[in-house]
Amino acid sequence: MKVLITGIDGYSGWPLALHLLSRGHDVVGIDNFVTRRRVREVGSWSATPIPPFPRRQAAVKELLGKDLGFHRGDMTRYEFVRGVLEREKPDAIVHLAEQRSAPYSMIDVHHAVATQVENLTGTLHLVYAMRECCPEAHLVKMGTMGEYGTPNVDIAEGFFDVEFNGRKDHLPFPRSAGSWYHWSKVFDSGDVMFATKIWGLKATDVMQGVIYGIRTPEITDDRLLTRFDFDETWGTALNRFIAQSVVGLPITPYGKGEQKRGFIALEDSMQSLRIALENPPRAGEYRVFNQFDAAYSVNELAELAHRVAREFGLNPTIEHPPDPRVEAEQHYYNPLHDNLLALGYRRTRDLEAVMREIFHDLIRYRRRLEARRHVMQATVQWRVPDSRPILDARHPREVRPAPGGPRGSASEGPPA
Amino acid sequence: MKVLITGIDGYSGWPLALHLLSRGHDVVGIDNFVTRRRVREVGSWSATPIPPFPRRQAAVKELLGKDLGFHRGDMTRYEFVRGVLEREKPDAIVHLAEQRSAPYSMIDVHHAVATQVENLTGTLHLVYAMRECCPEAHLVKMGTMGEYGTPNVDIAEGFFDVEFNGRKDHLPFPRSAGSWYHWSKVFDSGDVMFATKIWGLKATDVMQGVIYGIRTPEITDDRLLTRFDFDETWGTALNRFIAQSVVGLPITPYGKGEQKRGFIALEDSMQSLRIALENPPRAGEYRVFNQFDAAYSVNELAELAHRVAREFGLNPTIEHPPDPRVEAEQHYYNPLHDNLLALGYRRTRDLEAVMREIFHDLIRYRRRLEARRHVMQATVQWRVPDSRPILDARHPREVRPAPGGPRGSASEGPPA
Repeated sequence: MKVLITGIDGYSGWPLALHLLSRGHDVVGIDNFVTRRRVREVGSWSATPIPPFPRRQAAVKELLGKDLGFHRGDMTRYEFVRGVLEREKPDAIVHLAEQRSAPYSMIDVHHAVATQVENLTGTLHLVYAMRECCPEAHLVKMGTMGEYGTPNVDIAEGFFDVEFNGRKDHLPFPRSAGSWYHWSKVFDSGDVMFATKIWGLKATDVMQGVIYGIRTPEITDDRLLTRFDFDETWGTALNRFIAQSVVGLPITPYGKGEQKRGFIALEDSMQSLRIALENPPRAGEYRVFNQFDAAYSVNELAELAHRVAREFGLNPTIEHPPDPRVEAEQHYYNPLHDNLLALGYRRTRDLEAVMREIFHDLIRYRRRLEARRHVMQATVQWRVPDSRPILDARHPREVRPAPGGPRGSASEGPPA
Repeated sequence: MKVLITGIDGYSGWPLALHLLSRGHDVVGIDNFVTRRRVREVGSWSATPIPPFPRRQAAVKELLGKDLGFHRGDMTRYEFVRGVLEREKPDAIVHLAEQRSAPYSMIDVHHAVATQVENLTGTLHLVYAMRECCPEAHLVKMGTMGEYGTPNVDIAEGFFDVEFNGRKDHLPFPRSAGSWYHWSKVFDSGDVMFATKIWGLKATDVMQGVIYGIRTPEITDDRLLTRFDFDETWGTALNRFIAQSVVGLPITPYGKGEQKRGFIALEDSMQSLRIALENPPRAGEYRVFNQFDAAYSVNELAELAHRVAREFGLNPTIEHPPDPRVEAEQHYYNPLHDNLLALGYRRTRDLEAVMREIFHDLIRYRRRLEARRHVMQATVQWRVPDSRPILDARHPREVRPAPGGPRGSASEGPPA
């Protein structure tokens, strides 16, 4: 099968390419390297040094013996998207090329608009280009569990049986997202659902939980490492807790720390995307998978990070700064996730073991974390403190450029 | 009360301004005149001749003795939106400045993207500017009944009680729109709901049915007429049926004609918007009104138009071309609409009487309809006929410019 991965230079896109190549699939990628630039915009970089893309391709050739096709360009240019699809005629497309940070989308009005406009435009361009060039292809679109919010009922996989005023229907599960970014994923889901309905495209919408991990079995060499973000904007809470432990900062779960989310290991996320690809839906079908293995509270993550840190001779403290987000700090959380299990998905990784791997790698790259200590604390506020805007659009947020390469996929600073 | 109307030059915005002024409110408007340009883009114009905006303002001054403030500009420019709010400090904002045509959004990829990007950007700019300049103001946002689609259960007003797997919650009613335009309104609803949650803004989301009618009591002179679109892109089915009758074309309900939608008279739509404005929600509240009086099938509209046409000495036939849209042609339809009634809203107009008014006016402007006979039939397809795109993005849709004024609010061609 020939798979096009949009956002192939990213945290998930890169290990997915390696995983699919090693399973005998053909892979071609699209990226505009905007995540590299935007991580620099907030003054950070990846804990793992990420080589320029041509060196990533060369490493794939040398270590896996595979050719990895690539088109540099932007999903917001329709002619680019259509041109790639016309030339490549992929059997499947995994769409990961989106602005993926909730805090980034909350910085100010311009970051909010950029997030929603870019994500929505890229997805619309993709479905129109599929209609023109490869209407039989299978679109695997990355959504997020965060589209659903935290309702007081179980969360269905996309659709559920409704009984209202004595009548019944099977309807989309209500969405209630918690950031402009998460809303952009809700919007994408609506547009893709509609495209399958009117044009008969086939799509899988993956409501992904938070991914953890730094390695997959295909990452056999440092040259094949994927990026690992740990700053407040681009890193997950778990990543930040481990990075904080490594550099001797307190671990900082926001607020009460009882917010629960669904989690999945990077390696198992790759497994589930492959299973989705190898079991496509029928024409006109819009299928939703809730993709996660277990739900953890932020406190559980903090305590586990604290415990594993001690195994490595570290001794971080745990502090609870006020929650900068507007979210329920205590809530019911029980999303269903049967669809992938029915296709043969099985969890292979355990959070604690993966956390040890992450500690092991981050300690190797400790110098890269030390140089970016200042980006691990929350500054982006969801609220309006003292009823005044924090980030006035007339005085854009200070940008602290990191050292490192020029624009594009140039290496993110010197290796550790 | 000082009310800012975005999209004041449009079909609803203009009579709303007259209605509020005549009730003693202060009104200021925003518009970029894009609807005038886009109606020309599809080769049409308003059946009623619409003077340039300064002449509309002068007529208001002369006939109502009122000053009507105005700022020309585009909601996609944040500095413009913030500047107007900072200067005007309105008590309430009625947001109508959106691309409002479903067929226009379905023309091709570029019209789809423009519709969603412009609508979403304008709404985000508005809520951010409110946060900065007038966080106490009340936002009345125009949604559409079309956000809900046609589920097999009653349609709640925004939220409903859910019981799922033995637990209960009060959640957003599922949305399932039928065009890129209708999806853009779903997206706006999500963003506004989120803004009320995180910043404590107050908002009313009006899920509006199809509006019919050409006059309100305040339109006492032809210089105060609102626009009336009748082409396949910008006109409603009802408007098109009346225009077809007047020029001797067959009335053309699409498909089986049993598609049902909710309807409200222009005058009663103005009444309900005023009631919403005069009864604002509390800070942080996101309130949804389903705003319509009665549901009619397309066949009922066609038959009523046919009957009223005969009273005017016209004798149109009824034909059923294939439905160009992807929609259920037979379905359950029972939206609830209690919230406005609870605030004192009462229906004052009857469809048949309003239809006579429309016939009366359109017969006066028959020459303007005759000159645009060719735009009354469906050409925009939701589907892909013979699995080929109809409107290839590489060969943009032919644009037939109408005679008439230059760019901006210049008069739409000579009066009849």
